[in-house]
Amino acid sequence: MAHALRLAARGLGNVWPNPAVGCVLVRDGLVVGRGWTQPGGRPHAEVRALDQAGAQARGATAYVTLEPCAHHGKTPPCAEALIAAGVARVVTALTDPDPRVSGKGHTMLRTAGIAVSEGVMAEQATRLNAGFLKRVTQGLPFVTVKLATSLDGRIATATGESRWITGAEARRKVHALRLAHDAVMVGSGTALADDPDLTVRDLGAPRQPVRILVDRALRHAPDSRLGRSAKDHPVWVLHGASAPDPARRAWDKTGAELIAVPETDGRLDLAAALRSLAGRGLTRILNEGGSTLAAALIRAGLVDDLALFSGGVLIGAEGHPALGDLRLAALADAPRPILRQTERLGPDLYSLWSFARPGSGISS
Amino acid sequence: MAHALRLAARGLGNVWPNPAVGCVLVRDGLVVGRGWTQPGGRPHAEVRALDQAGAQARGATAYVTLEPCAHHGKTPPCAEALIAAGVARVVTALTDPDPRVSGKGHTMLRTAGIAVSEGVMAEQATRLNAGFLKRVTQGLPFVTVKLATSLDGRIATATGESRWITGAEARRKVHALRLAHDAVMVGSGTALADDPDLTVRDLGAPRQPVRILVDRALRHAPDSRLGRSAKDHPVWVLHGASAPDPARRAWDKTGAELIAVPETDGRLDLAAALRSLAGRGLTRILNEGGSTLAAALIRAGLVDDLALFSGGVLIGAEGHPALGDLRLAALADAPRPILRQTERLGPDLYSLWSFARPGSGISS
Repeated sequence: MAHALRLAARGLGNVWPNPAVGCVLVRDGLVVGRGWTQPGGRPHAEVRALDQAGAQARGATAYVTLEPCAHHGKTPPCAEALIAAGVARVVTALTDPDPRVSGKGHTMLRTAGIAVSEGVMAEQATRLNAGFLKRVTQGLPFVTVKLATSLDGRIATATGESRWITGAEARRKVHALRLAHDAVMVGSGTALADDPDLTVRDLGAPRQPVRILVDRALRHAPDSRLGRSAKDHPVWVLHGASAPDPARRAWDKTGAELIAVPETDGRLDLAAALRSLAGRGLTRILNEGGSTLAAALIRAGLVDDLALFSGGVLIGAEGHPALGDLRLAALADAPRPILRQTERLGPDLYSLWSFARPGSGISS
Repeated sequence: MAHALRLAARGLGNVWPNPAVGCVLVRDGLVVGRGWTQPGGRPHAEVRALDQAGAQARGATAYVTLEPCAHHGKTPPCAEALIAAGVARVVTALTDPDPRVSGKGHTMLRTAGIAVSEGVMAEQATRLNAGFLKRVTQGLPFVTVKLATSLDGRIATATGESRWITGAEARRKVHALRLAHDAVMVGSGTALADDPDLTVRDLGAPRQPVRILVDRALRHAPDSRLGRSAKDHPVWVLHGASAPDPARRAWDKTGAELIAVPETDGRLDLAAALRSLAGRGLTRILNEGGSTLAAALIRAGLVDDLALFSGGVLIGAEGHPALGDLRLAALADAPRPILRQTERLGPDLYSLWSFARPGSGISS
């Protein structure tokens, strides 16, 4: 199952709105087939593994990170394929929360006389597919906030200098993170300051993540890097109903997709914005700034992970803070994410923190 | 030598102004004696190891982290003791930069017909005794700045709440750090805000580090925790010549030692302050705050290590910054310390960073 989970992870960022699944077929102690969800979501992991195994699938054990599907969609259900191939035993990590599947895949297998074990490495599989699971169960995407700060929590000097706080290894890791997310998101402040293009470079990316600009009043220029490249790779612009018509028309011409989002107290309703993005199929979003948008997402309880790049540099209190106001009444109210992982990246330190959402069981 | 260095580390914080030395005697592949500098600096490591070995020292190899002393001080020189014990070979890590010893110990041993190898694990030994070496060669103590911050670089909420940003494991580590330093230092702002006593608790501390208050105008109250406990454990108060006489007399009565330091532009001259502390024998100082003093020390290039406790909590931009102004003209001028070590401490992340001082070779 650990092997199947590693295979599944290859699909992250490439398979939305589908789950990233991995499948390993083992017969007589030997791996006879391996598969993972292919870009775009098809073929499924089980089909790939069965294809690879051929006749050797008969009598094998299938390790699958998610319950095999039981419904006829674009392809016949994987549960049927496993039965037809003569698999003797199926071990799964999770029950699919999708109401079209939920439990039916397991039942179909058992009815066909196949031994089924469920819940193996469920915690790891839940974590891996947190985006898919959150979208299906809550109608929201999994959100990772990336912060690249100095050791004293600054993202720029007083004069706005921010290149470079972190080194080449950290920037490479950021590109890998982008690749493992369905979409990358920035606020208008960061867009105006940095004119980013948010593409993935140098990693042989099979596809580019959707690039999302959160820009209530459409202040960012349509002839920016994002606007100019919208015809090549998708750009989605979230704006308020009050955004000026000329800007809307100009952005529309770039080829970007405009998404109107309700406003509350003169700000975009971020929960509504994320629901709308989940509705369009996104399961994993990487928010890359700026400090205001990151703080607003955290305040609204919409953030699952914090990817913190601590650059080995000190900037001092005159610099720009990495995170905006959180409006805490007391320290007891402060969000306390849980440390998951640390990694040295050249001169910098990377740490990944998870916001536990009590009761959800998804991001814990 | 690695073993001898581990033994030497036991002396850190307990032996100033002496170096913390370790000695291991090996005969026929067996350890026959081990020693390290005892609290207060006497007896020396070699003497302890020779005592333990007794007659077995004859023909043994002595691994010593620093060149054995050659001068008659409170005790006869260790080089003589090694010769008298009939040691066959001496392996050392460093030449003692103290002009009373420098090279003479090695020479004395060689003249007596003992085989001497120098420079074994010199880098590690240099790092271990960076405080002793810096004091002898530069007349300054090794300074570690401790910062305990939220993940976004804050040390308190907008209303000043700062208990607790880090957890119990991190606080325990802070106490261990205090123990490994000769002195602990705070500025007047932190003293006024927190009324700390800066003692080491719960670790069976054989002694308390000197507690240093940097308080130009003597604003902190003599009946504070520091003042009230000055008779039990040493408190040194660094103040400016302009500090009011009544405050000076009141602090004097507490039993604290008052140290006048020159002022420049209405601030204490921190380089002069540290030279004065080195002159009193201190080799390793842990600065525990606050943000203004830490920034001033960093600006002045007086800091060797940064001990960063990153609490798993977010406070937001309204909180108090962990580090004061660094007055950088450009990001290229920002200090870029080097990551040495990371450690997970319960919910928090500890990282140790060194400010490389090109050419000194001491803190690198």
